[in-house]
Amino acid sequence: MEMQNVLIAGGWRASKNPVGSYTALNPAMKSALGETYPVSGEDDLYDLFETGKTAAEQLRTVSPDRLADFLELFAAKIEEHTDVLVEIANLETALPSEPRLRNVEIPRTTGQLQQAAAAVRELSWCRATIDTASNIRSKFGPLGGPVVVFGPNNFPFAFNSVSGGDFAAAIAAGNPVIAKANPGHPGTTTQLARLAHDAVMETGLPPGTVQLIYRTPHDTGLQLVSHPFIGASAFTGSRNAGLQLKAAADQAGKPVYLEMSSVNPVFILPGALRERGDEIAAELFGSCSLGAGQFCTNPGLIMLLKSEPTEAFIKNVADRFSAGAPGTLLTASGPDNLLNAVATLVTAGAEIIVGGEIAEADGFSFANTLLRVDGTMFLDSPTALQTEAYGTASLLVVADDIDQLKQVTAVLEGNLTGSIYTDTQGEDDDTYDIIEPELRPRVGRLLNDKMPTGVAVVAAMNHGGPYPATGHPGFTAVGLPAAMLRFAALHCYDNVRLHRLPLELQDTNPTGAMWRLIDNQWTQKDI
Amino acid sequence: MEMQNVLIAGGWRASKNPVGSYTALNPAMKSALGETYPVSGEDDLYDLFETGKTAAEQLRTVSPDRLADFLELFAAKIEEHTDVLVEIANLETALPSEPRLRNVEIPRTTGQLQQAAAAVRELSWCRATIDTASNIRSKFGPLGGPVVVFGPNNFPFAFNSVSGGDFAAAIAAGNPVIAKANPGHPGTTTQLARLAHDAVMETGLPPGTVQLIYRTPHDTGLQLVSHPFIGASAFTGSRNAGLQLKAAADQAGKPVYLEMSSVNPVFILPGALRERGDEIAAELFGSCSLGAGQFCTNPGLIMLLKSEPTEAFIKNVADRFSAGAPGTLLTASGPDNLLNAVATLVTAGAEIIVGGEIAEADGFSFANTLLRVDGTMFLDSPTALQTEAYGTASLLVVADDIDQLKQVTAVLEGNLTGSIYTDTQGEDDDTYDIIEPELRPRVGRLLNDKMPTGVAVVAAMNHGGPYPATGHPGFTAVGLPAAMLRFAALHCYDNVRLHRLPLELQDTNPTGAMWRLIDNQWTQKDI
Repeated sequence: MEMQNVLIAGGWRASKNPVGSYTALNPAMKSALGETYPVSGEDDLYDLFETGKTAAEQLRTVSPDRLADFLELFAAKIEEHTDVLVEIANLETALPSEPRLRNVEIPRTTGQLQQAAAAVRELSWCRATIDTASNIRSKFGPLGGPVVVFGPNNFPFAFNSVSGGDFAAAIAAGNPVIAKANPGHPGTTTQLARLAHDAVMETGLPPGTVQLIYRTPHDTGLQLVSHPFIGASAFTGSRNAGLQLKAAADQAGKPVYLEMSSVNPVFILPGALRERGDEIAAELFGSCSLGAGQFCTNPGLIMLLKSEPTEAFIKNVADRFSAGAPGTLLTASGPDNLLNAVATLVTAGAEIIVGGEIAEADGFSFANTLLRVDGTMFLDSPTALQTEAYGTASLLVVADDIDQLKQVTAVLEGNLTGSIYTDTQGEDDDTYDIIEPELRPRVGRLLNDKMPTGVAVVAAMNHGGPYPATGHPGFTAVGLPAAMLRFAALHCYDNVRLHRLPLELQDTNPTGAMWRLIDNQWTQKDI
Repeated sequence: MEMQNVLIAGGWRASKNPVGSYTALNPAMKSALGETYPVSGEDDLYDLFETGKTAAEQLRTVSPDRLADFLELFAAKIEEHTDVLVEIANLETALPSEPRLRNVEIPRTTGQLQQAAAAVRELSWCRATIDTASNIRSKFGPLGGPVVVFGPNNFPFAFNSVSGGDFAAAIAAGNPVIAKANPGHPGTTTQLARLAHDAVMETGLPPGTVQLIYRTPHDTGLQLVSHPFIGASAFTGSRNAGLQLKAAADQAGKPVYLEMSSVNPVFILPGALRERGDEIAAELFGSCSLGAGQFCTNPGLIMLLKSEPTEAFIKNVADRFSAGAPGTLLTASGPDNLLNAVATLVTAGAEIIVGGEIAEADGFSFANTLLRVDGTMFLDSPTALQTEAYGTASLLVVADDIDQLKQVTAVLEGNLTGSIYTDTQGEDDDTYDIIEPELRPRVGRLLNDKMPTGVAVVAAMNHGGPYPATGHPGFTAVGLPAAMLRFAALHCYDNVRLHRLPLELQDTNPTGAMWRLIDNQWTQKDI
């Protein structure tokens, strides 16, 4: 069977000396989908890097407005081709066409691209900083090499390597992108890459601005994050794969942004439980089962204090887990991975309350699973009991008392999020003040009275957190323009003659609206 | 002989089970100085980490004003004890008491501490970002663990691990510091640490806010950057030591900021050379010999185009190198290290024009050294010919033509700085436009008509650059408040009740003067 083309060196062409091929699966039917995709080897990579380097140089002379035009045109093309995108993404991921793919993820994806375009036009993202007395001026600029993006399996549009948040942020910061498709949805990625490349050509960007390959052997993959020509890379996926990429990138001195794993602890304090336990149980199951539990911010760890109301709450939650229909998982390995994760939790002392088994279904599926463990046991095996179970599988931790709950919090690994539910009358305030200081440094986003799923694309968002949730606690993967700073280098100009300065650092404010830090004051004025 | 105490766990005490001891040298006399300092082992480290962790927790509840009080009091104490500090630093480093130590470095050090204090009081450094519609708010906050600082040998005050830029930035961002003294000036560091600890106690900060050890064995040292309790680390020193620390920190997922090595290319274009060659030759020798050439921003690589005026310029520079008295090096290993670096350059094809030998002197010294190589040879061995020679030793690269100069630029490693000298009549403009696009992505700070030594402590400074000059191209080690962001984590608050928000994120602007990004506009107003 003929293999799909790769997008390399400015056009679609056959993979050069591919080292293998593969086919995507329909997870709802466990059946192979038609197309065959190449596994790229050294020859494709050589061209990718050469082209990416040239494109990075060429992009330096492209105006911000042209970059923004590209991002907006690409968004418009995605909107225009929504039907075909939703159809193929549904086949490849089994995510519901509506509302999820069509009404949630497509608008989110186009919205991100449009926000990125607005940030590029507005210019404030680059944090222009000027000291007039010393005539030293600095701003963030592109990295000088392409950004390699590895997309995850759970957002075929909004985190896709060729259309998602990392893609938008990398391009908006002025870098070309080398996209490595997620093997779960190569057809969706092809469609998106076609639209992206068409938009590149129509807006007159360097033809190598967007490149795409589907898969590589393991060793070759490590080159993608460590090659001398690349600027940086971004990966969203499993901790195991992420750590291998991190080791290779670190060794080469290349920045790598990883979003690896998170169990997103949710604390439900006694007052909240008494005040609105049933409501919280409903919220919890809703959050745990959203997208069949395959979200980075899925609540995997539920923290409770031992009491009779807690037992009633657990019963309530367990009933909801039992009653809910298990969703379809994204990959063929999903059920076995969940089985292994549950086994790890059980071996470490957790008890299965509901589920724990592969579900019989047409598609890849796993029973909604709820486990529990007491605080003492958790403190005995904190690492094993923080194993991420990628699906609707959560572990309830029932602590003996507030002191033990604090100790449990103190052994948590770095997470993307941490939530604390409290009552509205102040009954939980003292406990909050004990738990929050332990939780705050261990999470990127702290929530009150809210489940962590649902990541608003706003400037104040932090979709990041301490290691091992990510590789660096100072950066966010969602929220513009902050996410762009991952793909930027700090460029300082010392005594550089005025006519040679970039637009953003000249005396005149280039848009009249751009915010610049001049002599330690943020201003939109000229010098 | 009795060993000096370490500053651990809130007070001065004997090292617990030290694994060795050492004595500092007077580099001007090649003679041992009196005091003996311990090499700390596991027992000291255990206490350092435990104390640092506790101090990090305690610092969370300390007000910004109190932190600022500490920084200001410490600066005042340094000023008050200038005489004794200058005396011991001069003995330990052979840097001139005046003007260097007393009139340049002391004011710079106290100035940095005062700038850090001002940044803490003003609060804008934390980049508070608020989206009112979603009620999501974020800001940078402390890391949750101590920052470990390794100071270099060349700035006994201004980059000292217990008083320098990294120290000021780490404390100002709300983190305790574990200082690892540079072995070259332990007595200076002791004095500074005494003043720091006194200021800690007098302002009522947690007693473990500042800790100090002198030295560790190699393996133990790696723990300093990788222990689970630490927040991050900062190192300024050699590439070899930096890369070992980086590997250990990366493996543990701990942020590490490295300032490792840089040859700081200086391009002198033909027009500039014709216009003011003699003036530039004087500037060049001044910059190369400043501090006996032991500056991170020392011009190690001088880029020229083949011509008769270039030969005359080289002769001019060579005469200055010959005539200048060689300075005293900071360490006993300095002369041999220079001998090795010069040998590496020569083996790779460089020719010695001046110097190249250890100088006979009372102190550690090396002849002012100038080498040259042609562009073809440079392109043959670009790595070896970018070997840093830490002293007054620079390599002239004479390219055949502009095209070859561009190729030479394209193989440069990441550097802190890059300078381009051009004429004032526009003759060099075309060449500038060819070289600048290659140079810009390879350096942190780009200069025109100015030597790179002299790093102004202003907000727009970038004392950073692409790997291997540092470990990340987005951060600066000098310039406040930007340098503080290295030691901060992004803390997001989603739906968190107003009374639980940190000061900086509440509806009311806490100072009335703090800059916050509210709904994408920088403002000093309340919500």
